[in-house]
Amino acid sequence: MLTNVILDPILRAALDEDLRSGDLTTEACVSSDRLARAEAVARHELVVCGGDVFARVFALLDPRVTFERCLPEGAFAAAGEVAWRVRGPAQSLLMAERVALNFAQRMCGIASLARKYALAAAGARVTDTRKTTPGLRVLERYAVRTGGAHNHRDNLGSAVMIKDNHIVAAGGIGTAVERARARAPHTSRIEVEVKTLAELEQALDARADIVMLDNMDTPTISLAIARCRSVGRPPHGPIVEVSGGVTLARIPELVATGVDVISVGALTHSAKAADIALELYDA
Amino acid sequence: MLTNVILDPILRAALDEDLRSGDLTTEACVSSDRLARAEAVARHELVVCGGDVFARVFALLDPRVTFERCLPEGAFAAAGEVAWRVRGPAQSLLMAERVALNFAQRMCGIASLARKYALAAAGARVTDTRKTTPGLRVLERYAVRTGGAHNHRDNLGSAVMIKDNHIVAAGGIGTAVERARARAPHTSRIEVEVKTLAELEQALDARADIVMLDNMDTPTISLAIARCRSVGRPPHGPIVEVSGGVTLARIPELVATGVDVISVGALTHSAKAADIALELYDA
Amino acid sequence: MLTNVILDPILRAALDEDLRSGDLTTEACVSSDRLARAEAVARHELVVCGGDVFARVFALLDPRVTFERCLPEGAFAAAGEVAWRVRGPAQSLLMAERVALNFAQRMCGIASLARKYALAAAGARVTDTRKTTPGLRVLERYAVRTGGAHNHRDNLGSAVMIKDNHIVAAGGIGTAVERARARAPHTSRIEVEVKTLAELEQALDARADIVMLDNMDTPTISLAIARCRSVGRPPHGPIVEVSGGVTLARIPELVATGVDVISVGALTHSAKAADIALELYDA
Amino acid sequence: MLTNVILDPILRAALDEDLRSGDLTTEACVSSDRLARAEAVARHELVVCGGDVFARVFALLDPRVTFERCLPEGAFAAAGEVAWRVRGPAQSLLMAERVALNFAQRMCGIASLARKYALAAAGARVTDTRKTTPGLRVLERYAVRTGGAHNHRDNLGSAVMIKDNHIVAAGGIGTAVERARARAPHTSRIEVEVKTLAELEQALDARADIVMLDNMDTPTISLAIARCRSVGRPPHGPIVEVSGGVTLARIPELVATGVDVISVGALTHSAKAADIALELYDA
Amino acid sequence: MLTNVILDPILRAALDEDLRSGDLTTEACVSSDRLARAEAVARHELVVCGGDVFARVFALLDPRVTFERCLPEGAFAAAGEVAWRVRGPAQSLLMAERVALNFAQRMCGIASLARKYALAAAGARVTDTRKTTPGLRVLERYAVRTGGAHNHRDNLGSAVMIKDNHIVAAGGIGTAVERARARAPHTSRIEVEVKTLAELEQALDARADIVMLDNMDTPTISLAIARCRSVGRPPHGPIVEVSGGVTLARIPELVATGVDVISVGALTHSAKAADIALELYDA
Amino acid sequence: MLTNVILDPILRAALDEDLRSGDLTTEACVSSDRLARAEAVARHELVVCGGDVFARVFALLDPRVTFERCLPEGAFAAAGEVAWRVRGPAQSLLMAERVALNFAQRMCGIASLARKYALAAAGARVTDTRKTTPGLRVLERYAVRTGGAHNHRDNLGSAVMIKDNHIVAAGGIGTAVERARARAPHTSRIEVEVKTLAELEQALDARADIVMLDNMDTPTISLAIARCRSVGRPPHGPIVEVSGGVTLARIPELVATGVDVISVGALTHSAKAADIALELYDA
Repeated sequence: MLTNVILDPILRAALDEDLRSGDLTTEACVSSDRLARAEAVARHELVVCGGDVFARVFALLDPRVTFERCLPEGAFAAAGEVAWRVRGPAQSLLMAERVALNFAQRMCGIASLARKYALAAAGARVTDTRKTTPGLRVLERYAVRTGGAHNHRDNLGSAVMIKDNHIVAAGGIGTAVERARARAPHTSRIEVEVKTLAELEQALDARADIVMLDNMDTPTISLAIARCRSVGRPPHGPIVEVSGGVTLARIPELVATGVDVISVGALTHSAKAADIALELYDA
Repeated sequence: MLTNVILDPILRAALDEDLRSGDLTTEACVSSDRLARAEAVARHELVVCGGDVFARVFALLDPRVTFERCLPEGAFAAAGEVAWRVRGPAQSLLMAERVALNFAQRMCGIASLARKYALAAAGARVTDTRKTTPGLRVLERYAVRTGGAHNHRDNLGSAVMIKDNHIVAAGGIGTAVERARARAPHTSRIEVEVKTLAELEQALDARADIVMLDNMDTPTISLAIARCRSVGRPPHGPIVEVSGGVTLARIPELVATGVDVISVGALTHSAKAADIALELYDA
Repeated sequence: MLTNVILDPILRAALDEDLRSGDLTTEACVSSDRLARAEAVARHELVVCGGDVFARVFALLDPRVTFERCLPEGAFAAAGEVAWRVRGPAQSLLMAERVALNFAQRMCGIASLARKYALAAAGARVTDTRKTTPGLRVLERYAVRTGGAHNHRDNLGSAVMIKDNHIVAAGGIGTAVERARARAPHTSRIEVEVKTLAELEQALDARADIVMLDNMDTPTISLAIARCRSVGRPPHGPIVEVSGGVTLARIPELVATGVDVISVGALTHSAKAADIALELYDA
Repeated sequence: MLTNVILDPILRAALDEDLRSGDLTTEACVSSDRLARAEAVARHELVVCGGDVFARVFALLDPRVTFERCLPEGAFAAAGEVAWRVRGPAQSLLMAERVALNFAQRMCGIASLARKYALAAAGARVTDTRKTTPGLRVLERYAVRTGGAHNHRDNLGSAVMIKDNHIVAAGGIGTAVERARARAPHTSRIEVEVKTLAELEQALDARADIVMLDNMDTPTISLAIARCRSVGRPPHGPIVEVSGGVTLARIPELVATGVDVISVGALTHSAKAADIALELYDA
Repeated sequence: MLTNVILDPILRAALDEDLRSGDLTTEACVSSDRLARAEAVARHELVVCGGDVFARVFALLDPRVTFERCLPEGAFAAAGEVAWRVRGPAQSLLMAERVALNFAQRMCGIASLARKYALAAAGARVTDTRKTTPGLRVLERYAVRTGGAHNHRDNLGSAVMIKDNHIVAAGGIGTAVERARARAPHTSRIEVEVKTLAELEQALDARADIVMLDNMDTPTISLAIARCRSVGRPPHGPIVEVSGGVTLARIPELVATGVDVISVGALTHSAKAADIALELYDA
Repeated sequence: MLTNVILDPILRAALDEDLRSGDLTTEACVSSDRLARAEAVARHELVVCGGDVFARVFALLDPRVTFERCLPEGAFAAAGEVAWRVRGPAQSLLMAERVALNFAQRMCGIASLARKYALAAAGARVTDTRKTTPGLRVLERYAVRTGGAHNHRDNLGSAVMIKDNHIVAAGGIGTAVERARARAPHTSRIEVEVKTLAELEQALDARADIVMLDNMDTPTISLAIARCRSVGRPPHGPIVEVSGGVTLARIPELVATGVDVISVGALTHSAKAADIALELYDA
């Protein structure tokens, strides 16, 4: 749920970036009393995402602009289909167009990619990572969910993830887990990243709640999962996550290992912007 | 030149996004007096971009962190090469790592793509567009320049670009240009987007300073350029820009038409994040 | 077009400055259910400017306040004429009065002065400069346009202006122009400030798009313009701007030289505040 | 005392206004390793004011810039005298020049005007009003003090001033004063604005701590003061302030009436910007 | 009067603190079209305070939420009584609940404590101090007034209070008062803190407008007041304030001394949060 | 770890609140070149907390102020002991004193109360709640940890807690848990609040990771814990938390039930401000 109280600072900054000195062209060419409607049209199949953001960009610029949702969040839009419609002063529609599209194209792009991963991984949970665009994390995590994938921890303060440098600094996996458990809220599970089966043993000894198998090949992943299940399925044994070197093509083989969670940085750092046009008509 | 006065609000927001509730793991596992150095290593060939941003992220979090530039802005880094080095408290290096990399990977990615376009287009000017990430435009335009490409107008208030909707609203290209010229600062050229040779004639009649040939095939572009040159080379005739449907592969054939400027939205909306690792060592 | 997304941070800061600890007097003396209307009355002839700002100050403080525009932007108000009317809770009208007037008096003052220059300079374009009040540039540039004059470049990133220090640093006008042309967006013209006819020659050699004749006496300006026109009228030759030592009285003689643009810092840094009263009545 | 914690938001906004898209000209023409010094030179006699602001503008842009105060705050600078000197990268000096001067010219202008009033009014206290530039009140009040004049109340929450609309709303001067005294901190005096001698009687009956004689002619002011002194000199009788229709020329005759305080809106809303040049030299 | 222009930044920061990553539980469990009403119920007798703040928290999160005031500001609510009612989407009511209550419990707590002091001190004025919660001063001062007590000076710039360190630095009470009177607006009284009867003599010599008797026992306070009254009752003699070591139990004996003002830091730094429940019902 | 990037906006707002119009008294009475040292002295036994905040308040106001930590975070200070020492311009020490103390007194107060609970509850974990001061949550959570207690979830997005209204809306505990588990990151445990043993059974059926026993009497808590342990100790059975009606006196009897976590709103909403004086000396 993207509330305005969270959206507004992000959207205002974006409008300011494009409009703080006005719009030389629109102010000169378009009469202030001209009305229009504009339709956001998918130029290829995509997952609709960000209608509230799209609407709010226009509303912040000009509260007279009204919004109509033609396709619900998470629906597929076929090429040529209208996702959203706005109506209002033509000046305002033209002035906010680029900002609204810059958000929408990014959000639909992420949701569309997340959808592909989620469909390919039925049975396992695909998640994002913290490799998000600075300043836009809340939007990108929402897009991941809209696509049907899941979120990993939001930030460094919302969950524990012990990586190699933490282990070295703490003097071993056991000590690191113990310290983190002592420091973290009891609402947080303790996740440990392991690179080898030897490290996995230490994580199991330390009773990590989640183990993250980092950059392992598939046979090793299978061995690791078997070892974890020998302790027990969650919550009796750890949740198993894999990460690193994950591509869409590799998802089925990863799912076949029985892994619980697959985290994919590409969901947010490499999603291609969806192609969406804003077509303007007389009101 | 990315001054701190411009960078700081952007970087502070990104640090706040990841760190506002602290770093549960690092605070628990890493002693506050442990020192370390960390090296930003290219995992594939890339154009180095964003050293000042990378350094400033750490400095904002902890002024004790020092920065060393190993490769200058705009240089190629080979796979495995160190671009930048930071030294300071291990806690601070770990806490700021993800934010610093999120910026750097994006900036190097854009610079690397821009470099490819710029090299392919020797003789013509490749520019970005306003299809930038909301909130990060100043960084992305800088990355485009670092890569060797050029910037288009910064925002809606910094130059005039007359598109189809403006033309319809104004009642024709002639009126639109006239109004825009009356409104805009005399420091700004007047650019008109045309989709056909017929529209080009109107733009020439209106004495547009720049004509943008939108989504034309290459033979039509050649005809259009010949027509423009018949008026004169700039400034006696218009600067000619092409846009729409531009790919890296198509650049040579576009350059061969003699076009002046090629604007490419993909430079900013579709650049893949560069892969950069931060490797931590004892200080 | 002054959109709320641009106005609100400026107006909120101003309201905060005057009202952050409340209004001791009004809260004590005026009942919260008392309604009133208030009229903004010109105390001398002035050009009306800033109705949207005036209205928004009240609306931000109290959305129940309604606004009526009695005279359009850019109209002359005679002494005693009502420009704008607001209605709402008397408390809110009194609390926002001073802030609303502080904006309006400044904007009407600038618009009125700009009108005088624009009328005197019929045939040439009078522009502002960057000598604006820190934080209020967008309002002051709007007021200049409302008065009938024009804007120069908005900021250091929206156009190129090469001054003496740039020339010295670059090693000559030719190099400076060349570098600036390579760096600047192709949408921007290249302006060069010259102090002598010798420098003018160099600017012409460098094919500057605009030459600014700085602090020249009128005969020299005439010579300079003749020389520029011998190259050609724009766009075949440069646009010619004069600046420095411009007074309202001198405008006719400058216009007579055939100059294109006259830039006047006094439009924004020396306009006298217009005298406007807010008269309160029972609702 | 202008602390950075108060200055920085104001100065950052001003730098952002001019520099958020960089400086096209300076970045192109001036090498980043060129050093320079720049001197702020008075072009006519003025009262020096705002050295800390001038210095801080440069320091915020670039902490390498150093500052030297050549004349103390409040001193007279003769035409041609250097008030302040900055040294550092030429790029930074050029980029911050206009913003620094825009502040300094305004502050020196106000201080210079305040000085004239203060000298003319020896024996009485000249004060500013709330007719300040939105967003810059703290700087302008400082400039007024630097010139030798005084500040009136800072904002609507820092002192009580009962004007005609408050009196009407409260149902009379007596009730208004009583309510305000009940509401206001005991650290605040109660000021009442009166337009006639009849109103003055009511204000005296209500034991107002300050009476403000609004727009009275000089003989009436003399009568009013005599009446006030018949109650007693402060604190036994009220402090007497005059306002409205005050010009520099009228100050001596106002002082001769024995008035305590003369408040002058023109100090801040009509001070002419001082003319200050920034001259650049090789370092 | 708590205007939205002042409240919104404070309330937005609080909502951001709790909601910037959404509400995992409510988004998962509660349908977005479920409507509800919620009632703020006093769990013990308290003074109602902060209805506008409570309402605004919900309105900022979701403008569809409507507010009903069941008890006016300053009224007593008995245990079990409903002070305020909100209606709207159940999601929004649940998401804003904690933030709204965190404000309301604090404000009602302060108002309730202030009421106790105000009732005990009938005849003298009880005031707060600057010992307020950082960032919430405007709300806490409002709560103090709502309870029936008064405000002391708002901040360091709104009135003069000379304490021991100022006296030492200035070289004596006389000099300190003189300098402060010269510097401060004439609307501000000059208050001096004294610890002994000897210091009181100096404050009287310096004609301080207010003397604050700091940490004196009651007999000494009585002597001090007698001495002040021998000069005259205000405005002929000083207003007398006591501070330090004030408890509710001691108020009657302090009032009996005839003191004018009793300032109590505990009003804001030690008020217990009131216990208020938000009970949710089907709409 | 309280980094400046997180602290500064909070501390700047607090300084602005007290100092935005300057310090009338200090500016008048204290020479700008006078140096001093100031010591923060505990007036009663307390747990030292907030040294970094205290230091940063002074540093933000004036970077010349230096800070010395006399007692480490979390140490007991006896009455009269010096916790921290600052040195610098006397003006700056006086101007920032109140703001620095307002933070420190609150933080030491919370840490001292948390210490009492933590000592009393040895063997069980005492945590805070989200009943924190709006805007200061990060500081208050830090103070809780400094005292030796623990943090509960940071905000609505960092962990799941299913309360009665969520259960009603979802149609039962089972559905609510299932939906929350589907929505929440796998790093988050699922906590369910239960009021009766019957609800506890449903929470166990739903395999809640944490059950929170709300407002139960001690015998019922004992029964509930026995039932949970019959499923298994964590992670085989749920973590058990109690909340509601917790006082310091009741802690031992709660601990005796074998409960895992005791959450206490009073830690943050009812901690008394510690009494700390700032004593000023010649430098």
